[in-house]
Amino acid sequence: MATDTTQQSLSDWDNRHFLHPWEGMEDLGKNSRTFITGGQGIYVTTTDGQRLIDGPGGMWCVQLGYGNAEIAEAIAQQAKELGYFSPFSNTSPVSARLAHELARRAPGDLNHVFFTTGGSTAVDTALRFIHFRNNLLDKPRKKVVITRRKAYHGSTYLSASVSDTERTRVWFDQDHENVCFLPDVNPVRRRAGVSVEAFLNEKVADLENAILTLGADRVAAFIAEPILASGGVIVPPEGYHKRCLEVCRRHDVLYISDEVVTGFGRLGHWFASEPEFDIVPDIIICAKGLTCGYVPMGACIISDRLIADISGDKSKGAVFSGGFTYSGHPVAAAAALKTIEIFERDGILEHVRNVTPLFAERLATLGKLPIVNSTRGKGLVGCVECGDNSLAIDQKVGAQIDRRCQELGLILRPIVNMCVFSPPLIITADEINKMFDILERGIRIASDDLMRQGLKIA
Amino acid sequence: MATDTTQQSLSDWDNRHFLHPWEGMEDLGKNSRTFITGGQGIYVTTTDGQRLIDGPGGMWCVQLGYGNAEIAEAIAQQAKELGYFSPFSNTSPVSARLAHELARRAPGDLNHVFFTTGGSTAVDTALRFIHFRNNLLDKPRKKVVITRRKAYHGSTYLSASVSDTERTRVWFDQDHENVCFLPDVNPVRRRAGVSVEAFLNEKVADLENAILTLGADRVAAFIAEPILASGGVIVPPEGYHKRCLEVCRRHDVLYISDEVVTGFGRLGHWFASEPEFDIVPDIIICAKGLTCGYVPMGACIISDRLIADISGDKSKGAVFSGGFTYSGHPVAAAAALKTIEIFERDGILEHVRNVTPLFAERLATLGKLPIVNSTRGKGLVGCVECGDNSLAIDQKVGAQIDRRCQELGLILRPIVNMCVFSPPLIITADEINKMFDILERGIRIASDDLMRQGLKIA
Repeated sequence: MATDTTQQSLSDWDNRHFLHPWEGMEDLGKNSRTFITGGQGIYVTTTDGQRLIDGPGGMWCVQLGYGNAEIAEAIAQQAKELGYFSPFSNTSPVSARLAHELARRAPGDLNHVFFTTGGSTAVDTALRFIHFRNNLLDKPRKKVVITRRKAYHGSTYLSASVSDTERTRVWFDQDHENVCFLPDVNPVRRRAGVSVEAFLNEKVADLENAILTLGADRVAAFIAEPILASGGVIVPPEGYHKRCLEVCRRHDVLYISDEVVTGFGRLGHWFASEPEFDIVPDIIICAKGLTCGYVPMGACIISDRLIADISGDKSKGAVFSGGFTYSGHPVAAAAALKTIEIFERDGILEHVRNVTPLFAERLATLGKLPIVNSTRGKGLVGCVECGDNSLAIDQKVGAQIDRRCQELGLILRPIVNMCVFSPPLIITADEINKMFDILERGIRIASDDLMRQGLKIA
Repeated sequence: MATDTTQQSLSDWDNRHFLHPWEGMEDLGKNSRTFITGGQGIYVTTTDGQRLIDGPGGMWCVQLGYGNAEIAEAIAQQAKELGYFSPFSNTSPVSARLAHELARRAPGDLNHVFFTTGGSTAVDTALRFIHFRNNLLDKPRKKVVITRRKAYHGSTYLSASVSDTERTRVWFDQDHENVCFLPDVNPVRRRAGVSVEAFLNEKVADLENAILTLGADRVAAFIAEPILASGGVIVPPEGYHKRCLEVCRRHDVLYISDEVVTGFGRLGHWFASEPEFDIVPDIIICAKGLTCGYVPMGACIISDRLIADISGDKSKGAVFSGGFTYSGHPVAAAAALKTIEIFERDGILEHVRNVTPLFAERLATLGKLPIVNSTRGKGLVGCVECGDNSLAIDQKVGAQIDRRCQELGLILRPIVNMCVFSPPLIITADEINKMFDILERGIRIASDDLMRQGLKIA
């Protein structure tokens, strides 16, 4: 093995050999990505010794922060005992136990856990499960999935097909035949003079009209993040999900709640569907926070009702012929069980609920800054939207804020003209204040920079 | 958290909450799966204290065996230092380094590593990469993927669409429009009187004819496992892959070599494509052995040629808008780097090549047993095929051999009427003898059982 590990070699290797997600092909090989070498609590450190608050919490996933020795120990212990088993023919105590713990925490009768390797494969599996079920129920035409503009559900062909990337051209192929997109549900975007209540009625009607237009005999499912995360932390009007679920029930359409971001404490609950949005969906998707991001894992949690439709006497001898080498992986399961244990012992869900008002207050204050045109969030996830111009200008605004905040000690996740943050859930009140202090200063400096460049920001 | 962990609770939880891959829906909730609790070297232990040789090596993945303290330490160390980073915006030393080490070991100009969470997502990404590339090259119609009967490439919608499960009805939907299956390439199945050479010519002609029939302007790629693994360890005639690659080159069709099983030492090489089959494909898929199975990870390794077509000046400003939260995961990368280090230090590739003749000889000997109709394999992967009757009888044969071998101390992987084995690569000559001794005895006893039941096995 190469032992030459100068920073120059690492940068060369990163550029030459590591094709990153969302890689810009024009600049391929010419990046100067920041190397993250370590982390502790809400902080990460870079190769040049900078210590930064990790605003996005990894990628909405490092709920308990970095350097958690207990999780590290749990996975090492499991790897030493049993680093792998085949879930196709056998099982393991740690995986059966995790399935039980997830079923206990999932709402209603969602009791069947199909483990995957992340959110994308969990969504892919959920949609394939619905194909499987509807074929068995002799409804082979009932396959359309209704999704929404700004949704993000993953990066396999099927999960990407129900995801929207509106502002940039997508060069991938997608399934258009069995996917239907509803318009943006962001109340910020409602037309002048339209009340939030009228907007809500319109958004619920969008769903019902789509079902009626396509024909309920063709529509299999509605998939929704409770809060559209990567689309820019879009919080639909209150009551939206409950009313959408009622529409689905009226037309025999399944409801998939994608809780990859909202689950595992982000909104102060194991799953947000029931306590925050008053729904018991048919399938819940989870990943990310499930293992605190330390080991890849996802899960698709299916209701007793759906399983009853197609098992036992009703099975027609069918085999659910899908699954992954790593389904229910013991090391991932050990990380998840330890995460759950720490959440309970340290009262993480209560902590999130306790610090949420401070987070919300500081977030709202940013709305007064000159280039900020909207702030929004829920629990420990927030978004500041700046400008609203051409794509080129908006990208410049986002990138400039990102750069300035990083200089000041805070990593953000710029999404075009939006700065999104979802810090580790262990963040203290003091640290929340510190994060927002930097953010505010970063936005002010970036704003000055842009004005000096003569850019007119909406 | 539940602290009640009697075996009865675990079994109940497994049945009630853990929906397994390839779950038979008729018997759902009534399984009595074996619980694997630990492992050491080539052995796993069960809850009732049985110690079994792990014939399938997990799921063709635990190359260095169970209980490897060095891998456990490496992942714990990495988890403590940095358990996660976002590959979307940043990078990490361990991931850049692994990309470099993989590129060094991949043949020819395959230098760009796109990390995924396993084989399925790596195949899904490879196919999506080809969509992306051909759209950018203004060849949007060139999308058909040619695959083969008995192929297995994964369990997402797209990777499952290029996989074949011939003998049981599949209730899932698949993409039929852009997929074409070639007939079985197993020389054992050739018609009486046809020489292996004639069979080879026929199989290569199958590929070229398919391309000509569909039109080369519609065919994007050919995907092939060097040895069809889950399909029953099918070894195509010598020269097959090289000649298929020549056909692909003639018609501007890309060649994807799925080395999830054959890579990382199974045939005595890092990748088998070049040293064993004399091909430098356009894309190589790897997973499983890459991390010794201890942490989920896959990779799709793409050639400089393909990247050059669509990057820099030729990019049209495109963003490769795909990727996973866990792409290049640092803990998985640490497991992979430690695996590579141990392989080199302990001479694992040389060891595999050294014990392969003994493995092959013992395998061939099984062919003399009454109910065995074919044995085949390469490197440390083997298959014994018994019977060749109706599906019901064949399943009974496979299950009975499996049961008898497990009683005698060996886990197998029964695939209908085939017993497939791919033990950890650290298996010694003595252990190989022991494994085959049990297998031989198990087949003899099962054979007697079946004859007593009056079953006539082909």
